[in-house]
Amino acid sequence: MKSHHFEELVIENTTKIIFLIMDGLGGVEMPGSGGTELQVACTPHLDRLASDGICGLLDPIAPGITPGSGPAHFGLFGYDPVEYNIGRGVLEAAGIDFPFTPDDVVARINFCTVADDGTITDRRAGRITSEENVSICKKIQESIKKHPRLDEIIIEPVKEHRAVVVFRGKGLQGDLDDTDPQKTGVRPLEPKARNQQSVETVPIVSDFISQVADILSDEPKANMLLLRGFAKYHRFPSMFERFKLKSLAIAAYPMYKGIARLLGMEVLEGMTDIASEFKALEDNYANYDFFFIHIKPTDSRGEDGDFEAKVKVIEEVDSYIPAVQKLSPGVLVVTGDHSTPALLKSHSWHPVPVVLYSQCCRKDAVTHFDELSCINGGIGRMETVFLMSIALANADRLAKFGA
Amino acid sequence: MKSHHFEELVIENTTKIIFLIMDGLGGVEMPGSGGTELQVACTPHLDRLASDGICGLLDPIAPGITPGSGPAHFGLFGYDPVEYNIGRGVLEAAGIDFPFTPDDVVARINFCTVADDGTITDRRAGRITSEENVSICKKIQESIKKHPRLDEIIIEPVKEHRAVVVFRGKGLQGDLDDTDPQKTGVRPLEPKARNQQSVETVPIVSDFISQVADILSDEPKANMLLLRGFAKYHRFPSMFERFKLKSLAIAAYPMYKGIARLLGMEVLEGMTDIASEFKALEDNYANYDFFFIHIKPTDSRGEDGDFEAKVKVIEEVDSYIPAVQKLSPGVLVVTGDHSTPALLKSHSWHPVPVVLYSQCCRKDAVTHFDELSCINGGIGRMETVFLMSIALANADRLAKFGA
Repeated sequence: MKSHHFEELVIENTTKIIFLIMDGLGGVEMPGSGGTELQVACTPHLDRLASDGICGLLDPIAPGITPGSGPAHFGLFGYDPVEYNIGRGVLEAAGIDFPFTPDDVVARINFCTVADDGTITDRRAGRITSEENVSICKKIQESIKKHPRLDEIIIEPVKEHRAVVVFRGKGLQGDLDDTDPQKTGVRPLEPKARNQQSVETVPIVSDFISQVADILSDEPKANMLLLRGFAKYHRFPSMFERFKLKSLAIAAYPMYKGIARLLGMEVLEGMTDIASEFKALEDNYANYDFFFIHIKPTDSRGEDGDFEAKVKVIEEVDSYIPAVQKLSPGVLVVTGDHSTPALLKSHSWHPVPVVLYSQCCRKDAVTHFDELSCINGGIGRMETVFLMSIALANADRLAKFGA
Repeated sequence: MKSHHFEELVIENTTKIIFLIMDGLGGVEMPGSGGTELQVACTPHLDRLASDGICGLLDPIAPGITPGSGPAHFGLFGYDPVEYNIGRGVLEAAGIDFPFTPDDVVARINFCTVADDGTITDRRAGRITSEENVSICKKIQESIKKHPRLDEIIIEPVKEHRAVVVFRGKGLQGDLDDTDPQKTGVRPLEPKARNQQSVETVPIVSDFISQVADILSDEPKANMLLLRGFAKYHRFPSMFERFKLKSLAIAAYPMYKGIARLLGMEVLEGMTDIASEFKALEDNYANYDFFFIHIKPTDSRGEDGDFEAKVKVIEEVDSYIPAVQKLSPGVLVVTGDHSTPALLKSHSWHPVPVVLYSQCCRKDAVTHFDELSCINGGIGRMETVFLMSIALANADRLAKFGA
């Protein structure tokens, strides 16, 4: 049975499920460090949880595959990350809570600087501020002439040099290549359709680019744009529709809030640090069935290559585990969306340690929460997408399959 | 390669395979018990088998999914439990050895009691005896007028308040919802088709129900019926057709005999207890290639929540292992169809320990047959449906795939 086809077994219950996700949690040993980030970190509470619970290793997509943040999180929530793969444009727009319609083709904008001959000199437009970004987007929005095939065209700023554009038109398709050549000294690429259905979108995009080039021609830095991650918006079945889980996302960063919104979770605003996230969990605990708590700094410090700082973030999160346990959730899961070893300074393919606690989880012999100990855990090694069905089973929210 | 698509590799041999299936074998730790049922049980012979063999954990369907008995057994015999999922009606009728034809739509009958206003007052008709059941079925069969669309309509008693009805008609489809509302104080539900092909079956079923209501109107207890588990019978390829295994089922309970018959196994009658089953194995050992021995009480005691009694059943089965080994089968497998932890008093999703012995199984380091030890076994954790291909390989009954 595919893990993402078990909705018909879902039953209602009042049990609560908490997914504490440390972004980029998994690591590898850094020479001289004496182990991975999790092995080196002092985590008495997570170790206790591992002793009482069941552990394992999760492959976000499949063995050897390094995931982006979108598919990695989709898998965590039981949405097959390949079947439900979404374009970066949609992810970016979801992060700013853009109100999609089913007629929307979305792309991410990177403002850039081009020379007189049209070749790119700075792919980030001299790192313009978010304020400059806002005024540039406003300038485009006010001057742009909507292509006759479109009902609407919308430009929304995101942050620094990043923005999104939404081409809204009935039946419009969006399988287009990026116009970003990923290097300077060359001209932006021409928009190109990846399939027959998207061919009619090409002149619409070309018209947009050429109008923007005119509108921004007097800008000192952001005088051009590159388009990436074209995607048509598709509505996803929500966590409530699929799993009967009234779900709350507690996250500080736009992208993760965006992913949560795409899956129909309610999203708390105003999270500033780890402490505020755990406080929010307590404050809102009575009102939801499922809680997604997203901890970003584990990933950020991993990307920095700062082993010690990543260890410290893990230790800080560990200190909140007793407060979470005090809420007595039916199921508590601690894991990551993927690995971000400080050694590699990037997302990686290494499977991610997971611990799940419930009163009937059938605890295993693992007593330390780290990559090497979890190899011998009772969950074994499996694809992340199966995690949700195990969590629902432990929460007594799944009926029997077959007679 | 899908586990159920390897038939083309099957070769004939004279090696024998024994599957000793303890129903609901897997458990979890009961507070104060000091471990799971298998951990606590004294099983010197199973432990010796684990030491000499290869161990692992099996997911009957997929991680987190609790199986019914039908799909759980289909998986054990190498039949994909989702692809080959069958309705309860067919399973129930197979249990009484009903001679199906390809034109049969089958449903399970629960006789019930309704008040004058048609609302259900007892969903089990005051638990009528099996003898009353026989005479009620006879009464219906003698008076019922076959719907013109049908070639035949057959009512067969099963046990207590349970029976089956077979609607036999060329091309008839059977995707209908249950008429059992699963509660008293309301009227039975009207039959309803789940798809267009089954729409024509609805008036046939309605006619049957309304005739039965008339026929039983003078009955004090069983004056109505509820229909469940509608299913069209499909013939399954047999164990012999797929695996060239002349197969014998040794089971005491009707449902498991029924499953075995659906897969073309021969079925021994007259099994009364565990001792008689092992005796039957010895008596019939010369005449078959594959033996399915089904031990029911592990599941029954688990469903009772009687941890100690389940432990005792396991210990009783353990005492027969030397006699089974004395037969020198090419492959001996001991496992369960699913877990039934006494703690939960029901089937559960927890993976099931398995041990397989053959002279070339590549033994692992496991020395005790229980859930926690098997985590570190050489089979690892996998879906049950792969077990049959491993057994056939160990029995030297599978050719090489590809050149």
